[in-house]
Amino acid sequence: MEVAGSFSRLSSPRPVSFSVTNCAKYPHPNPTKTNLSFRNSGYAPVSASVERSSGSNVAVHLDSKFETILDSVKWDSKGLAVAIAQNIDTGSILMQGFANRDALAKTISSRKATFYSRSRSSLWTKGETSMNFINVHDVFLDCDRDSIIYLGKPDGPTCHTGAETCYYTSVYDILEGSKEDTEERLAKTTLYSLEATISKRKEEIETLPNGKPSWTKKLLLNQELLCSKVREEAGELIQTLLDNEDKDRTASEMADLLYHSMVLLNLKDVSMEEVLEVLRKRFSQSGVEEKNSRKKN
Amino acid sequence: MEVAGSFSRLSSPRPVSFSVTNCAKYPHPNPTKTNLSFRNSGYAPVSASVERSSGSNVAVHLDSKFETILDSVKWDSKGLAVAIAQNIDTGSILMQGFANRDALAKTISSRKATFYSRSRSSLWTKGETSMNFINVHDVFLDCDRDSIIYLGKPDGPTCHTGAETCYYTSVYDILEGSKEDTEERLAKTTLYSLEATISKRKEEIETLPNGKPSWTKKLLLNQELLCSKVREEAGELIQTLLDNEDKDRTASEMADLLYHSMVLLNLKDVSMEEVLEVLRKRFSQSGVEEKNSRKKN
Repeated sequence: MEVAGSFSRLSSPRPVSFSVTNCAKYPHPNPTKTNLSFRNSGYAPVSASVERSSGSNVAVHLDSKFETILDSVKWDSKGLAVAIAQNIDTGSILMQGFANRDALAKTISSRKATFYSRSRSSLWTKGETSMNFINVHDVFLDCDRDSIIYLGKPDGPTCHTGAETCYYTSVYDILEGSKEDTEERLAKTTLYSLEATISKRKEEIETLPNGKPSWTKKLLLNQELLCSKVREEAGELIQTLLDNEDKDRTASEMADLLYHSMVLLNLKDVSMEEVLEVLRKRFSQSGVEEKNSRKKN
Repeated sequence: MEVAGSFSRLSSPRPVSFSVTNCAKYPHPNPTKTNLSFRNSGYAPVSASVERSSGSNVAVHLDSKFETILDSVKWDSKGLAVAIAQNIDTGSILMQGFANRDALAKTISSRKATFYSRSRSSLWTKGETSMNFINVHDVFLDCDRDSIIYLGKPDGPTCHTGAETCYYTSVYDILEGSKEDTEERLAKTTLYSLEATISKRKEEIETLPNGKPSWTKKLLLNQELLCSKVREEAGELIQTLLDNEDKDRTASEMADLLYHSMVLLNLKDVSMEEVLEVLRKRFSQSGVEEKNSRKKN
């Protein structure tokens, strides 16, 4: 598939023509339709403007609906809006830049996160130099229509420093003067902080064999114990349903099951991101979960 | 604890005095020290500036290190930087605003996400009207020092519309003209999309009893089947370790275990966010996981 065009602009500094080729290399991540409605969005849908082929490609026509979306964004006095790239599987905020009308149009049509560089006064697609593209699965606008999320899957590290994301400097760490560790500390949400803690325990086993004991280390060193714990925690989770125990008990047992399973994942060198990628591919198409699961039974 | 002060400003539009009281109501989420180092950050730490009490409060002194952090941000010509509030447990991007020097200072000291309103030319703390504060656990700066993440836990819905986050308008949904559903569709990452799909199946059981069959519905309607599946998937995950199966097999079995467990969570009306909150509280303090786990054994 080839998409080529020149976007008209209302507020961006100068016209940009673009040509996106070989889109067949980047199949649409979710070829089925999804549902939504608008809540106080003030957006009135117009005629259909996207055709999705029966295969894996999508052809975007730059018609009135497409233009209406671009017009609906509240571009600032410089023709820009904030654009945040987020990892669709982990939720990590990868980077933040700015988009003008053309950058948003190119992102929507090419499905590669594209920004407007204020320093170079030009469009740039993340990955055009490093090849670490951010493959966009969905694009969200906020309630005020002046902030954009590019929800996508990065091909590799996003930061120009080689870090996974651009956010690795904690203000509170600086204030505390914590410098015990030579590793960077990425902004991580709960699940990935836990994953990092488990990895750290494994490293400590290798580098500090006489370091302080820990339950995680004990599990990492004793497969039999670990397997019996995973089985036991699954049983306890089930029991909260069968015995109609309270919600807190269920949350606690699920937390136990998740933690012990993640220790097992560490031993197998499997990341939660890989697990979530499996889930996304399995569940992103309507009805797929049923088909897959029924096949198993 | 009371923190009061007046921040000097280098680039923000006008001086702002502030007073934050009753901080004891908002104990520091993680009273132990954490580690980090800087990767190409160009930041030279100076003398210590934060004292953490032995209890749950933190006293911030507006000394040189604090000022250095504020100075290190690359404020734009209007004295602003982008500030993104993110849910620490789910990774959801809650909202995006702008911070000036005073807003960042107030966020760091009060641990309530605070922004600079460009329309009102004043500071505003999210929640000061709605009481839905965003309780900040960590603040991250990006590699260029012109973008900030407020990583925190919201007290309630963040959007002024009552939506959980401000991002509920999908560009591709508009282009496709999907209007089958009357619900909003929030920007969700994989785990929470799956959770939403399971919830939808449960609603369909209640509203469309003769709708299309699905494996998820079958599980929701048959506790015995569900429990046997959770047990079975835990066993299969364990087996990938014991039999030294390949990584893909482990990721796939973990995905199965996670999905079936999440169906059970739905029956118990427990969200993944609640589970992650349990994990965060359990693991956020060094050594706690060991103590807790050892108590159980």
